[in-house]
Amino acid sequence: MSSSSTEKIQKTYHTKATGNALLTVEKHSHDTQLKLYGGCFCPFVQVNPLQLSLPAAIIGSRSSKLKQNPPWTHTRLILSTWIFSVPALKRGDWGCYESTVLMEYVDDISEKKLLPQDPKQKAHTRLWADHISRNIVPTFYRYLQAQAVDKQAEHGKEFEKQVNTLLEAADPEGPFFAGTKPSFVDVMVAPWILRCPRVLQPYRGWQPPPADSRFGRFIAALEGEDSVRATTSDDELYLDSYERYAENRPNTSQVAKAINEGRGLP
Amino acid sequence: MSSSSTEKIQKTYHTKATGNALLTVEKHSHDTQLKLYGGCFCPFVQVNPLQLSLPAAIIGSRSSKLKQNPPWTHTRLILSTWIFSVPALKRGDWGCYESTVLMEYVDDISEKKLLPQDPKQKAHTRLWADHISRNIVPTFYRYLQAQAVDKQAEHGKEFEKQVNTLLEAADPEGPFFAGTKPSFVDVMVAPWILRCPRVLQPYRGWQPPPADSRFGRFIAALEGEDSVRATTSDDELYLDSYERYAENRPNTSQVAKAINEGRGLP
Repeated sequence: MSSSSTEKIQKTYHTKATGNALLTVEKHSHDTQLKLYGGCFCPFVQVNPLQLSLPAAIIGSRSSKLKQNPPWTHTRLILSTWIFSVPALKRGDWGCYESTVLMEYVDDISEKKLLPQDPKQKAHTRLWADHISRNIVPTFYRYLQAQAVDKQAEHGKEFEKQVNTLLEAADPEGPFFAGTKPSFVDVMVAPWILRCPRVLQPYRGWQPPPADSRFGRFIAALEGEDSVRATTSDDELYLDSYERYAENRPNTSQVAKAINEGRGLP
Repeated sequence: MSSSSTEKIQKTYHTKATGNALLTVEKHSHDTQLKLYGGCFCPFVQVNPLQLSLPAAIIGSRSSKLKQNPPWTHTRLILSTWIFSVPALKRGDWGCYESTVLMEYVDDISEKKLLPQDPKQKAHTRLWADHISRNIVPTFYRYLQAQAVDKQAEHGKEFEKQVNTLLEAADPEGPFFAGTKPSFVDVMVAPWILRCPRVLQPYRGWQPPPADSRFGRFIAALEGEDSVRATTSDDELYLDSYERYAENRPNTSQVAKAINEGRGLP
C-alpha cells in the first residue's frame, strides 16, 4: 500500500495560556514567595488557582516538561529553577507537588477554607474528592485516548456513569456539589467538566446534557464561576492541546502513557 | 492432554483474625459509638487500628464481601449492618469508607495526632502517603499476581525500586520514616511491609534486606512496634489468605481484578 498523499498538519503545541487565563497569569506575574508552576492546558494545575484567592501566586504558563525521574528527585529539583513535575508549588526555598497534596496545603494556609471544618463533613468531602481522582479522571483519559469506536463507546458510558455517581452523591438542588457555593469537590472536578464541551465533544462526540438536568445545571454553575473563568484559556487552546491525546500519539504525556500501559496515573 | 491426576488442595479461607490480632479484636468487641469493619487479612483495614488508641473501636473480623456496587450505595449500606466496602467506619448513625479517607478522619478526631501540624510538613507527609497508594501498593499486587517468571522478576524489581524511593525520602537515621517515632507514613505502609516476609517471600522468593541496611532497620522497627504486633495475625493466616492472589485465581478480590484489568485500584 502506498502512503497517504496528504500529510496531516498537527495542531499547535501551546506553551502559553490565552484569553482570561493569560490575563490572570500576567496579573500574578510579579515576584512573590508563593509560586505555582504548570502547563497552560493542564487540568491538574488549573485546580490550584481555582482555589482562588491564592493572594499572590505566579501561575507559570511554561509547558510541562515531564521527565521520567523518580519522584524524590522532583522535590530536590523544585528548589532550583527547573520543575520536573507539574503542578508544583514553591514557597520561598520550599517546594512540593501533586495536585491533591497541593490542594490540601493551600487549604491549610488559606484563611478562606474550602474544606469543611467538621470532621465528618471533611471525610465526606475527601471521599468524593477521592472518587474524582480514582474514577472520573482516569476514565476521562481512557475515553479520549481510545481509538476503536467500540472502546470509545464503552469508555464514554463509563465516564458518564462516574460523573453520575458524583452527582447522585451531590446536594440535589445544587447547583454546585455541596449546594449554592463552590466547594473543594467542585474545584477538583471543574477542569475535567470544562473539558467535556471543549475536548470530548469535538473529539468524541460527547453530548451535552439537557440544560435543566442536574448535570446541565452543574456545568452552567461551574462555567459561570469567576475563578473558573479567570483560569480558563480560549477554546482553541484546548482543542489544539488535546489533539495528541485524541490521536493517542506516542510521547504525549506521562498520564497518557500510564493509561496506555494500564497503570494508575503518575 | 489429560488433566492432572492430583487435585490441589486450596488453603483455608480465613474469616477471623488469629494470634495477637484476635486478642485485639476481642478486647475491642464491646459495643461502642465507633466501629471499624474489615476483612481479617486485609492490609487496607490494618492501617486504621494501627493508628492506635482508637479508644474503643470494634475491629470487625468478618470477611470482606465486596460487591460491584456503585460507591454511593456503600455509604448508605454502611448504616445497616451489612458492609459492602471495607475498611469502613461507623460512628453512631454516620459511616464512611476508603482507607486513606478514614486515616485522615481518625487523625482529625484523635487527640494524639499522627499528621504534623505544620502545613509544609503535613504536605510532605501527604506526598509520601500518596506515593504509597499510587506506587507501592499496586506494585505489590502486580508482583504477587504475576504468573510468568519474567514478569515476576520485572515487578519484583519495580516493587524494590518504589520502596527504595520512599526510603530515600525518609530520615536517614530512622528507623521509622520521619525519625525515632512511627508517623502517618509508617502506619500507611506498614501492612505491605509486614507482608514482604509473610507473603512475598514464600510465594515470590522475596529476599530480606541486610539487617543493618535502612530497609532492614525499617522492617525491624515496624515489626517491633506495639500497635503493629497487636494488629497482626499469625503467619499462617497471611500465607493461606494470599494463596489465591499468588495463583491469580478468578474472583479473588476487586483489587486483584483491577490489577488484572490494568485499572487503578478500587
